[in-house]
This record gives sequence, C-alpha cells and structure tokens, in this order.
Amino acid sequence: MPYHGFGRLTPVARVQRLLEAAVRPMSRTESLRLEQAIGRVACQAYTAPSAVPSFRRASWDGYALRSRDSKAARAGAQVELAIVGEQFAETPRRSPLRKGEALEIATGGALPEGADAVAPYEEVRVEGTRLFLSNAVPAGARVAGRGEDFRKGAVLVRSGEVLSAASLGALAATGRSSVRVYERPRVRIIPNGNELVGPGGRLGPGQIYELNHVALASFCSASGGLPSSVKPVRDDPRAILSALRRGIAESDLVLATGGSSVGERDYLPRLFPQLGKLLFHGVAVRPGKPTLAAVSGGRLLLGLPGHPTSCLANAYWLVLPVLRKLARLPGSGWTEIPARMAEPYPISGSGFTTVVPLRVARGRAFPTFKDSSAITSLSGANGFLLRPPGRGSLAKGERVLVSLLPSPLAVPPRPP
Amino acid sequence: MPYHGFGRLTPVARVQRLLEAAVRPMSRTESLRLEQAIGRVACQAYTAPSAVPSFRRASWDGYALRSRDSKAARAGAQVELAIVGEQFAETPRRSPLRKGEALEIATGGALPEGADAVAPYEEVRVEGTRLFLSNAVPAGARVAGRGEDFRKGAVLVRSGEVLSAASLGALAATGRSSVRVYERPRVRIIPNGNELVGPGGRLGPGQIYELNHVALASFCSASGGLPSSVKPVRDDPRAILSALRRGIAESDLVLATGGSSVGERDYLPRLFPQLGKLLFHGVAVRPGKPTLAAVSGGRLLLGLPGHPTSCLANAYWLVLPVLRKLARLPGSGWTEIPARMAEPYPISGSGFTTVVPLRVARGRAFPTFKDSSAITSLSGANGFLLRPPGRGSLAKGERVLVSLLPSPLAVPPRPP
Repeated sequence: MPYHGFGRLTPVARVQRLLEAAVRPMSRTESLRLEQAIGRVACQAYTAPSAVPSFRRASWDGYALRSRDSKAARAGAQVELAIVGEQFAETPRRSPLRKGEALEIATGGALPEGADAVAPYEEVRVEGTRLFLSNAVPAGARVAGRGEDFRKGAVLVRSGEVLSAASLGALAATGRSSVRVYERPRVRIIPNGNELVGPGGRLGPGQIYELNHVALASFCSASGGLPSSVKPVRDDPRAILSALRRGIAESDLVLATGGSSVGERDYLPRLFPQLGKLLFHGVAVRPGKPTLAAVSGGRLLLGLPGHPTSCLANAYWLVLPVLRKLARLPGSGWTEIPARMAEPYPISGSGFTTVVPLRVARGRAFPTFKDSSAITSLSGANGFLLRPPGRGSLAKGERVLVSLLPSPLAVPPRPP
Repeated sequence: MPYHGFGRLTPVARVQRLLEAAVRPMSRTESLRLEQAIGRVACQAYTAPSAVPSFRRASWDGYALRSRDSKAARAGAQVELAIVGEQFAETPRRSPLRKGEALEIATGGALPEGADAVAPYEEVRVEGTRLFLSNAVPAGARVAGRGEDFRKGAVLVRSGEVLSAASLGALAATGRSSVRVYERPRVRIIPNGNELVGPGGRLGPGQIYELNHVALASFCSASGGLPSSVKPVRDDPRAILSALRRGIAESDLVLATGGSSVGERDYLPRLFPQLGKLLFHGVAVRPGKPTLAAVSGGRLLLGLPGHPTSCLANAYWLVLPVLRKLARLPGSGWTEIPARMAEPYPISGSGFTTVVPLRVARGRAFPTFKDSSAITSLSGANGFLLRPPGRGSLAKGERVLVSLLPSPLAVPPRPP
C-alpha cells in the first residue's frame, strides 16, 4: 500500500519564512533601452553628470530684463525699455543685456547674461520695439536657475530602485538612452503526469490537456518572471529527474506541477531530496496541501499540486513573493485594499490556512470559488485573502483586506 | 505681440467627457500564444468544444468500487472486495468493474464502468489483493463527474474579458494554444521644440535633452499601449504638421509634446484645427494648463505641455483613460486606495483642479512635489489625486483616495 500520509503539515507562515530565507536575489544584469525598462530594478545608482538645465532659463513667455531697470515702475509712472530682439529656446544671445534693454523670450529660453527676471506678456504693454512696465519685476521672477531640474551629482536613480516613468525621464534628461537593470528571473515550468497532453496533441482515453503551464507562465510573466515550459513529462522518475536537472541548470526557479502528493506515482517528494535539501512537504493550506520545496545549488525547486486550482492558488501566495525576491522587487507584490464580504464564505475545519479567491468591485468582495474547484472558478478573481487557521467562516459584511493579483492591466477595483 | 491668452479654460470633468466621447475603441485584432496574453482583451467569446474532463475521474487516491457493494460495511462487520488491478491516470481499464471488485486508482484516473465511488487509502485495510472496508462508501464519493471542470458549451472567456492566468488556463484545458485579442493601441509620441536634442546628440548652448518621449513611452507601455517616438521636431509648422499627419496615419493615438501653449512658437493650437476638430485648448488644471485635443479622421491628437512634470501629470489623469478606452480595457485604470496625508500640501488659487503626486506607503500619503517642479519630483510617486477646484489645501491627516499609477510591478502600498 503506497499511502503513507503527509505527517506534520508545515504552517503557511513557516513556509513563507523558509522560502524567504532560501531565495537568493538575482545578480545577472542587462542593459535596456530606457523605453523598455519601466517596472525593472536598477542594478546601480545613476547620478547627474552635469546640471540640468546647464543654463538659466525663462519659465514663462515674455521679456527678459534686468530687474533693477524696472524698480521705479508704477501704474502712474511706467518704465520704458528697448526691445533689442527675440530669444527663442535654441538660439541663445551671445551678448549681455545692457541697461535699459529687454529681450523677447519663450519659456525654456536661455536668459542672456545681465538679465535676471522675466516680465510676462500679460503684464506689459508693447509698442513696436518699446516695452512699457507698470510694475517692478523682482529679481529672479520667472527664471529657472541652472540645475533647477537637478544639480550635477544629484542622485537620479538609486541602486535597487524600481524604475518609473519619471525616473526613466530623469535619466533621459542626462542624455542617456539605456539603463542597467537586474535580469528578470527565468522560471522553468515542468508539468508531470501520464494523463497530461500538451497543446495541439490528441487526447487518448483518460487524458486531459495540461493547463498549469499556461496559468503559471501567465502569472509569472505578470509578476516579473521570464517563464519557459517543457512538454508534460511522463510519470517516470528518470525523465522527471532529468527535466528538473535541466531546469536547475537553465533557470533561476523551477516549478514542477503534479506528482507532489504522497501516492505511489508522486515522484517529486522522492526526487527533490536527491537534488538538494528538502525544505518542506505538505503545507497546512487549502487548497494546495500537496506542495513541497527544495534548494539545489542555490536554486529553489517548488513542487506544486497538479490540480489547477490548487496550483494557481499556490502561485498567488507562495510563488509571487519568491519571484519578487528573486527579481529584487520590494515587498510581497500584493497591493491590499479593504473591502467587505458581499456574501458569506464557509470555511470548515481548523489547522489550515484557507486561500479565498475574491473578486473585488466597489469595495465589495465576492467569493469566486463556488461549488466547483475548477480553474474557471478562479477566472473571475482579481484578488484573494489568506484566512489564518482557526478563524472560521467569513461572514457577509465582514471587513477584509484583499490582496490584488498581479496583472499588468487588471480590472481596477474601488475601495468602500 | 504674440500673446493672446487661453480665454476660457476647460474644466477637467468636461475634458474627461469630451475625450471619452471622442475615443473609438480598437477594432484590429491579433492572435497570441496563450502564455503571452495575460492582461489582454479577448475579442470574441470562447466556449468549451467538449466537456472537461470527458470522463468520470477519481478526486482522491484509493480504490474505485461499486458503492452498493460497500453498503453493509460496519466497524464490526467488514466487507471484503477483490482488488482486480490498478488504474493509473493514463491507462483506463476497458472492462467494467463487476460485483465485489475494486480497482486501485490515483487522483485523476478514469473511473471504470460500473464503479461509482472511491474509498481512500486512509479508510481501508489491504491484505495482498483483498480490500477490507469498515464503512459504507456513498455513491459519488471522491468521484469528479464528466464535465466537472466545465461542460460542453460552457463560456470560458467572454468577449471583451481581460484575460487572467485562470481564464488562459481554462482555454488551455480545451487544447487551445492561442487566443484572439484586440491589438494594443499604437501611440505616436512627437516631441517638438528647437531646444530639444534626442538621446546621443550633443547639446548646443541653450539646449536640453528631450525626456518626455521616454516618460510618456514608459507610461504608455505600462498602461496597455504600444508606443513609438520620433526624434524631436523643430519649431517649424510644416515639419510638425508632417509629423502629426504621419502619426495619424500610423497610429491610434498621437501625443505631441511642447508648443501647446499660446506663444508665438506654439504651433500645435494652430495646426490641430487644420487636421480636424479642436475639442479644447487650455485646461483648468495645475500643472498641465497648456493642453489641447483634436480629432482627425477618428484619431485623437493630444497636445501636451513640454514641461516634463506637466506632461507626465497629464498622462496620469488624461492619457490613461484614453488609452484604456482605446484598448477596450474596462474602467479608468486607477486602483484607488484610501490613505491619510502624512504632510500638509498647500494649494493656492481656485478655479483649477490640482494634480497632487503622492507616494503611498502603509496608508500614509506623502506629497512628492516639493520646491521643484522637475521630473525628479515625480520619480518617487506611486500615485496621485485630483483635488477639485475650490477645495483648497490638503491638511495633514486628511483622508484621501489615492489613484495608483499603472506600473506592472509597482511598489505595493498598504492601506491604513
């Protein structure tokens, strides 16, 4: 009789600590064009090689002038200046502005030497080349100083910073066109099971199409990973071992699915210890109990249940933090938003953490797990929560914190 | 004197309505491998071509049997069945199970004809090929019915649905390897201004590196668009017109930056009406006032301020909803989370909506706009809020709703 049971299940919190301790963040780096780097992690700091802008410029359309020339201007006693030309952004005037002179200037234009203020069109009167001021213009008015965007040596991007549109823009302002970032972690997905057929194959009796590789690859690519999948591997220990070894050699994280339980044909629990140190087998979580992990040569191997719902539910809370730590992305990756349960959600038994997939809309959380535990019951979810052991059922109207699933373009929920 | 002012500024709410009415969602479609389609929008419904699974299967490891054979089993009066073989997932037994027979079976294995229940290893005793039951096993126990994942004809993906890891998995379960989705909207970015130099160029006096194309392209790609940029165009109406015309011909949305105000060299307000219907010029928003829009041949043209902070702030509230509607993504795209202001934020004047960039962390919102209005002041922001006209300054501790910026891998904030 092949059954031996799981023995003691590992609590979710301990699984999280074990994985956190086991994952080594990426060290490989690559250079990317700035436009392709949003959301990536800078592997070095970038400082400004020179001040931007490198000159004083007008921050308003109008006339550059010497502020002290305007000092005496009053409503009843206008000051007259001579407009000596126009100054558009690209053609800085070489000669300094002299006493009594003004220069028409556009926003962004370099202020000529001698000028220290800009009078806006709205506040002046012009007749031909004569400019009339009714107000004194204070020194520095509508002038952006040299280095106003940033000074030479200013830190534009910190090492380890997740690059945003604005920080990439700041790099572009220094004339850079590329940035060095950590590579995305490569994730090898290895489905195993004799009943599994890959896409395009023909189903024999008792066979089904393998779907975990698609669900996991999609999830990983939305979470900062670079997934690749192999065809379903037969329930043959040598074939599985070989696929795992290749996975370890060629990627940063190995996700094997199926064969993770305690049956006769569940080979992962016997193979993982041959490859490295087993961290745990059997997690006190529902769904997702038949889950195991090992570390081999610094690489993490995860064995996930073949049942699609269990597999994907594990991805939510277990794979995502691993991927983010690998990718050097800060935090767990879950944006949590408060909501109220729109319906009750029964949870039976204790001793298990329950993964509750939810759809959050306008502050209400709807359970998507209904009668069926099929993959379609997760299709509607845009978030989930982990209900700790012993907390029992969720009541209608109960306040909850929902962790949003990573999806680059997820349907936006609204808080209450 | 070239100055004529904006005249009446268009309120933000009206700008939003005008743009919403002007945008035509994408009609072009493309076929993608399932693994590449997360976050994309399905352009048709997908139904199950057949039931999955197509057979009854065990949902637990144990022994398949005929439930009525077990009816009499009691603790004191065990029932004995004959184990006639083993049944693993890939090799369905052809002959029906007869009275008094049991078949060892693994989770996922096809139930033989005649069998209607599974007794788990945990609840039986085995001696050689003899199986002893101490309990009756009810009909249907640990059996997943045909079509339990989904029935033939079940809707797996609705037309217009944003594809998730789970819904892509459901498509894979039908043997599909691709899915048809709407194309991502192509966005043409056209910076203009004589003072602008593209990446790699040498700065002359009074010149700066163009950065808006990087900030906008990054923002657009994180928001569902497919950006392409042209080199900075000189302040020459014919050159700008030509770039705009090419943009209209080659893309779904045109974003021109710079030259959007009311100065002599601000050509966009004069060129847009030559290309189509001007929707507005001048928005009652700070920053971002010099903004305009037109529709030409069904394509939307937006003229955004050249000032990088204004340009990117406009992207947050104005470009994102346009892009999402083009891409057929539901909602505005902003995930809103509640927070409290960690610091006061002074807002002067009325009549303007104020864009307040914020960094949200653990339920507290920190303004990132400080003394400088440079692009670096937005680098730290992971969200923003729109303060309506007349609402005045934000107080420390004030409750706010922060719209998170779209970033595939944004730093996760936490609610209060």
